[in-house]
Amino acid sequence: MEAFSDGVFAFAMTLLVLGLRDPTMGSTGPLLQGLFGEWPAFLAFGISFNTILVMWMNHHNLFTYVRRIDGPFMLLNGLLLLATTLIPFTTSLVADHITSTDSGTAAEVYSGTFLLVALAWNLLWQYAIRHPGVLASSVSDAEIKTTTRQFIFGPTLYVVAFVAAFFSGIASLAINLIVLAIYAFFAAITTIGGRSLESVKVDLGLA
Amino acid sequence: MEAFSDGVFAFAMTLLVLGLRDPTMGSTGPLLQGLFGEWPAFLAFGISFNTILVMWMNHHNLFTYVRRIDGPFMLLNGLLLLATTLIPFTTSLVADHITSTDSGTAAEVYSGTFLLVALAWNLLWQYAIRHPGVLASSVSDAEIKTTTRQFIFGPTLYVVAFVAAFFSGIASLAINLIVLAIYAFFAAITTIGGRSLESVKVDLGLA
Amino acid sequence: MEAFSDGVFAFAMTLLVLGLRDPTMGSTGPLLQGLFGEWPAFLAFGISFNTILVMWMNHHNLFTYVRRIDGPFMLLNGLLLLATTLIPFTTSLVADHITSTDSGTAAEVYSGTFLLVALAWNLLWQYAIRHPGVLASSVSDAEIKTTTRQFIFGPTLYVVAFVAAFFSGIASLAINLIVLAIYAFFAAITTIGGRSLESVKVDLGLA
Amino acid sequence: MEAFSDGVFAFAMTLLVLGLRDPTMGSTGPLLQGLFGEWPAFLAFGISFNTILVMWMNHHNLFTYVRRIDGPFMLLNGLLLLATTLIPFTTSLVADHITSTDSGTAAEVYSGTFLLVALAWNLLWQYAIRHPGVLASSVSDAEIKTTTRQFIFGPTLYVVAFVAAFFSGIASLAINLIVLAIYAFFAAITTIGGRSLESVKVDLGLA
Repeated sequence: MEAFSDGVFAFAMTLLVLGLRDPTMGSTGPLLQGLFGEWPAFLAFGISFNTILVMWMNHHNLFTYVRRIDGPFMLLNGLLLLATTLIPFTTSLVADHITSTDSGTAAEVYSGTFLLVALAWNLLWQYAIRHPGVLASSVSDAEIKTTTRQFIFGPTLYVVAFVAAFFSGIASLAINLIVLAIYAFFAAITTIGGRSLESVKVDLGLA
Repeated sequence: MEAFSDGVFAFAMTLLVLGLRDPTMGSTGPLLQGLFGEWPAFLAFGISFNTILVMWMNHHNLFTYVRRIDGPFMLLNGLLLLATTLIPFTTSLVADHITSTDSGTAAEVYSGTFLLVALAWNLLWQYAIRHPGVLASSVSDAEIKTTTRQFIFGPTLYVVAFVAAFFSGIASLAINLIVLAIYAFFAAITTIGGRSLESVKVDLGLA
Repeated sequence: MEAFSDGVFAFAMTLLVLGLRDPTMGSTGPLLQGLFGEWPAFLAFGISFNTILVMWMNHHNLFTYVRRIDGPFMLLNGLLLLATTLIPFTTSLVADHITSTDSGTAAEVYSGTFLLVALAWNLLWQYAIRHPGVLASSVSDAEIKTTTRQFIFGPTLYVVAFVAAFFSGIASLAINLIVLAIYAFFAAITTIGGRSLESVKVDLGLA
Repeated sequence: MEAFSDGVFAFAMTLLVLGLRDPTMGSTGPLLQGLFGEWPAFLAFGISFNTILVMWMNHHNLFTYVRRIDGPFMLLNGLLLLATTLIPFTTSLVADHITSTDSGTAAEVYSGTFLLVALAWNLLWQYAIRHPGVLASSVSDAEIKTTTRQFIFGPTLYVVAFVAAFFSGIASLAINLIVLAIYAFFAAITTIGGRSLESVKVDLGLA
């Protein structure tokens, strides 16, 4: 199942490139000026790509802890994948509208999808920690607490980004960028400050 | 072979996002109103995504039982993948036509493809249980019977959805949604009520 | 490396669906009639999908024999993947032109790409059998001879299809269909009549 | 993580095919003449496909050496994937503009993306060799030196290609082609002249 999810994450990230378009199609200006005018597409590409990347890193870490997979876990994982698959669509939506009068609506849809992803993520995690046998027994209570605390940030901040979109699309995008930076930081230190993948695997009896 | 099939399932699911389009392209209305007008695209996306997801879960469970893969089994699996690959096409077809006068035709093609998937699935399963050596010998007769019974629902209900499409495209879509709900329920309880993946693997000598 | 190649094969197969288009875009006829008019797209989809499928099956079987991978082997495998990646393009080309005056050109490009795939395939195989250490030593000379004989059919028949395209695009397509049928037959019996995957693995010391 | 990266490389390579277009769309000339007129698209496809292929081969070789993966390594790997994902976009940009007055700009963006890939690659490698525990201890200093020397070629030559693009887009493309040839040569001999994958794995205790 991890390979399947990895495929969806990797494919959603790569499909984002289809949202980047040749700016000279239908216009006559020089290419370089056109590319600079496409900054919203590049910005949205960068935020979405890295958000999916960090999400994948968390997903990968989660599966290091998981021992047993059952039906509801698979369905909740499916909800997470569904929300992730929507991101290439909402990314090109926000890229096309962030400088127009529909900037707010586009940013609501964009942040709303990230909110959905973060909620699906928390559901998956809560299911895992509440059902004995899903997580490996060697996962300590301290690790569970740290992860739970980190995962609550996501939905909270995406709610802020969603509400902010009613006032300013750009402000909402900026909040998405901040959430990304926080999670990239978490992803970086979790593995360094904590334990190496290998030591986790030794504990789980996988290596 | 499972990794290869997983890839096709994952790509087909992710490609569905290309069927979602910016509603303001070619029109001048506000974005929010346009997005609500795109409800058939979102509905079709949801049904198709989750149907492929549940199909993949069944495929995954099937491969837990399989011990030996031969040529005809691979070709039948290829037929299943071919039908699955058609789904992004039939999904955008039904999304574009469900509110038009061609609603019936679109729903026939949509249900027809799901019917083809369900038939390919049954062929694969029947081949597996009729050829000694394909399934692991530890799979009990009771498990085979339960699975066979569950898999007969699919084609039967998709025939109903196909016939219903001659009268009403929307009714046909609703039946597809019901089939999806039934199979999601099966997929959820099979693993919970029955045995954990791990215990299956222990039985098969894989763990 | 096999996982990487599997990804390219699976992805190329799934991308073929983008060659299927809603026939009512830009026309006003009924959907059903339009879909029947799209028969070249469905035919080309079917031939290409199944040709890549059978090629993947052969690729999978080849990697069951391979023990050691070196640089030139990887580059030849890359040539095979490059030719495979072109297929979604040549498929939509042949679908769009097989009923027009450019039918011959489209069929030449289509058969030409399959010819390139078959040649890359033979190069890969010849490299494998001529360099000691690439194939596992347990692969018998008889198996090598059978496989070599089967693989020579491909380029020969695709040359016929290529030449036929100068006279008739449809005839060339028909030959592609025949080659596909022959290889599907080979793929089916090789594993049945011969040995199971499991027994091959036992011989190779992998199981 | 290697499977995930493999997926992104494989998708980016396969997505390149979407940059090849039917030349008769919107024009009335014969297909064959149109296809010859599309030479920039085929040339750019070939350069990009093979550059990603060789990059993937290097990535694959790198992961043969890696023992432990931590957060910053994953983020640097993400940067490499982000740059790789941009290639289908820059490829179609250079294909569409290399014969126009914007030829220089397109070639700058194209070489610039390859430069970014090469820099991300060097960052990843430098991180790996400077942090004890990332590389397996059996990797010799000589191997590290050889690899470091080979990887410095890339950014240097892509800077040349980037600068050359200010004078001539075609010259810049030609330099990209030369870099590709050099790296394909390295990739081929590294594994042949050096050690087989299997012997590396034995050293690492993986086989």
